Parts: sequence; C-alpha cells; structure tokens
Amino acid sequence: MNDASTTTGELKARVLAFAQERDWEQFHAPKNLSMALAAEAAELMEHFLWVTPEASRDVTADPAKRAKIAEELADIVIYALEFANIAGLDVATIIAAKMEANARKYPVEKARGRADKYTEL
Amino acid sequence: MNDASTTTGELKARVLAFAQERDWEQFHAPKNLSMALAAEAAELMEHFLWVTPEASRDVTADPAKRAKIAEELADIVIYALEFANIAGLDVATIIAAKMEANARKYPVEKARGRADKYTEL
Amino acid sequence: MNDASTTTGELKARVLAFAQERDWEQFHAPKNLSMALAAEAAELMEHFLWVTPEASRDVTADPAKRAKIAEELADIVIYALEFANIAGLDVATIIAAKMEANARKYPVEKARGRADKYTEL
Amino acid sequence: MNDASTTTGELKARVLAFAQERDWEQFHAPKNLSMALAAEAAELMEHFLWVTPEASRDVTADPAKRAKIAEELADIVIYALEFANIAGLDVATIIAAKMEANARKYPVEKARGRADKYTEL
Repeated sequence: MNDASTTTGELKARVLAFAQERDWEQFHAPKNLSMALAAEAAELMEHFLWVTPEASRDVTADPAKRAKIAEELADIVIYALEFANIAGLDVATIIAAKMEANARKYPVEKARGRADKYTEL
Repeated sequence: MNDASTTTGELKARVLAFAQERDWEQFHAPKNLSMALAAEAAELMEHFLWVTPEASRDVTADPAKRAKIAEELADIVIYALEFANIAGLDVATIIAAKMEANARKYPVEKARGRADKYTEL
Repeated sequence: MNDASTTTGELKARVLAFAQERDWEQFHAPKNLSMALAAEAAELMEHFLWVTPEASRDVTADPAKRAKIAEELADIVIYALEFANIAGLDVATIIAAKMEANARKYPVEKARGRADKYTEL
Repeated sequence: MNDASTTTGELKARVLAFAQERDWEQFHAPKNLSMALAAEAAELMEHFLWVTPEASRDVTADPAKRAKIAEELADIVIYALEFANIAGLDVATIIAAKMEANARKYPVEKARGRADKYTEL
C-alpha cells in the first residue's frame, strides 16, 4: 500500500470497515469527527510550538520525532476520510473543485512568491 | 477525478505543483502547514458548534451548507497532502501502519460499541 | 487567590514574571503563543469528543476528570494572559468592548433561545 | 473596566449575565464551549500562519490588525470564562495551582532560556 498505487477510495473503504467492525458509526457524527480532526491537527502542531518555521524542517527529519509526526498526520487523514465517508463526499472531486477555485483566487502571476490572502493581492 | 480512480500520489502531485508554480514552498514549513491544517479543521468545526451530534448529520445534508463543508474538508486534505509532500511522507503507508496499530489497541471484541480510549477498555 | 479578589492585572503579572524568570519571552512571539493556545484548547476538547453535549456536563462533574479539565482550562487562560502581556493588550478592556459589540449583534429580543449566527437572526 | 481594577469574578459575572439574558445556557454545554474556544483560538492563529515568529510581533503592532487580534483574544477569554461559569471552576484558583505545578516541572535553574518540554530538561 503506497501513494503510487492506492486510491483515496481504497483508503476510505479501509477506514469505514474499521469503524463498522467496531460499531463506531454511532459515534461518528460530523460534529464529533470535526472535533477529532481538530484535536489531531493540534497534536501535530504541538511538535512545532517553539521552533522557527525553518527549524521545523529539521524536526520532521529527526528520526525519533518523524515517526510520531507520521502518526499524527495519519490520524488527521484517517478522520478526514471518515468524515467524507459519513457525509458522502468524494474526496478527489472536492479537492479538484477547491484547487480550481484556488487557482482563480491565486493566479500565478499575482501570487508568485507572496503569502498574502487573495483579498490583499 | 474521483475516489475510485485517483491515487493519493496523484493528489499529492497536484497539490505540490500548485505550490511550486507560485513559489510557495518557502512558506510551507512544517510548522506553518500544521497551523494551516489546524485552522482549516477549526473552520470545519464551526459548522457544528451549537448543534447536537445527531443534528450535525442534518447539517452535512443541507445543500447550502454541504458545499461549504466540502470546501473546508478539501482544504484540510490539501494541507495534509502538502505536509506529506514537504516532510517526504507516504500517506498510504502511514495510514496502513496507523490502522494496524489502532487494530491492536482496539480489538473488535473489546472495542465494539464503545467510545472509550484504549487505556480504559 | 480567587475570582472574587484577584484582578486580571494580578494574574497577568504573575504569568509574565514566570516567563521572565525563565528567559522565555524570546519564545513567546504572538505566532507561537497562538499555537500554544490552540493546542491547549484542543486538549480541553479531547475530554468531550465522543459524548453528547448533555453528557459533557457530567464529565466536568466527575472528580477525576474535573481536575484534568481544570488544568487544561488554566493552561488556556495562562497563554491568553501571556499573549495579552506580549501584545500589550488590556484584557478587561477588550472583553468589555467585545461584549458591547456582541450585544449589538445579538439583541436580547432577537437572540433569545437561538443559537443562530447574527447574520441569520 | 481595566486589568488593574477588574476581578476575574466581575468578568465571569458579566459573561454569565450575557448568556442568561439570551437563554443561551442550554447551548453552553462544556463540549460546545470547548469547540467554540478551539475555533476562536484558530481564528487568532490565522493572523500568523505564514509569518515568522519574529515578524508576528510586528503583526500585533499593526493598528488595523491589532484591533482584529484584540477581538479574537477577547472571544477566547470570554469562552474560557463561560466554561468556568458552567463547570463551576474558580479561574484564579486553578491558575495559581497550575502555575505552582509548572514551577515544579520547570525549575528556573533548569528551564532558563530553554523551550524544551520538562520531560526533556
């Protein structure tokens, strides 16, 4: 199982099966899943609280921390996929749509090298 | 582009190309991406602040709100994929590993129908 | 030290002294403090992920959990006060201003018993 | 109303009265308030996503942004105080207790000038 050969559909199915086997869909209301997602995102963030952005690149390269960071990121994506399962959303479709909208908001010629919000470009 | 036919590798490549075209990799330090992820997760959560978990299922079914919710979820997954790009992580691999660990922590016979943390099962 | 007799100024001074004694002001940039605040808010939220709002009232009443929850809430307020210290903000003043703005956005006659956003009242 | 003369008890009473006048206590379950707190913390964080920690000090000094940042911080403290109201917690007491615990975990001689977690000092 790797990114070159695994579809988002396969990952979603695996996450759904895990929840169904445990009869956890009753807990997986969108409200609860959104909280779990935010909580996992915060756990990822905790690895970088007091370092500079540049130094945070070294943190992800550190072998011991890298394993923990990979777990936090996995948790985030797992909950995002389960949210998609429960809400009946196609992840690839909504990403494609969002990236087209982003491309209109952030045209290359205006946005290149700038971190400003599109309303300030 | 849909979940049945799109690999996580294809989505990652698309997200990376978007950032590279805009010379945004300089801003995409792990620290900054983890903040953006947490901020997007919070925006998703805002749709469900004051409703019960059960009522939150209706919120995701409401057509007007559904479109906004899909965008927030897309933003979360986009930032998660870009984090994986920058940190050099294979999303399918780390999800598979995390789900195997979760299966050991939450064996079906113990965890069925229970929302308790594995330390309390 | 209790809420009846302690000013926000006294709490702010205590938090600032703690940071200064440890030469921690160098780490307490607004960006970093905002991340720490969000991370602590997520830790508080983790106590309530899978329960209903009504059941969450019992969680805060449970003696063992209550102590942990009190610590998470303390962490949030400590970081909020330190953010105010670093940014030079008067907490009582900005709360008074925000509550006046909220009172205009949510007049009693319109907002009574409703959780809708002011734009939807 | 300012930090030199306002007690946390006075602020809590003001926040509680606002909720009671609108019959909002029914929505203010700990679960919901913890989500609102995390959502507001994320809004504060959004002002600093792509800047360095050092540059974030300038953001809080910028007059236009300063007003917005003050509002986000006010929202955080308001929800923290309302959480304390609903859970029956004395904010000054729990802060004092947490800071004593922190002082034991981070003794000045060990922690001075270091951002490491106490487990790594």
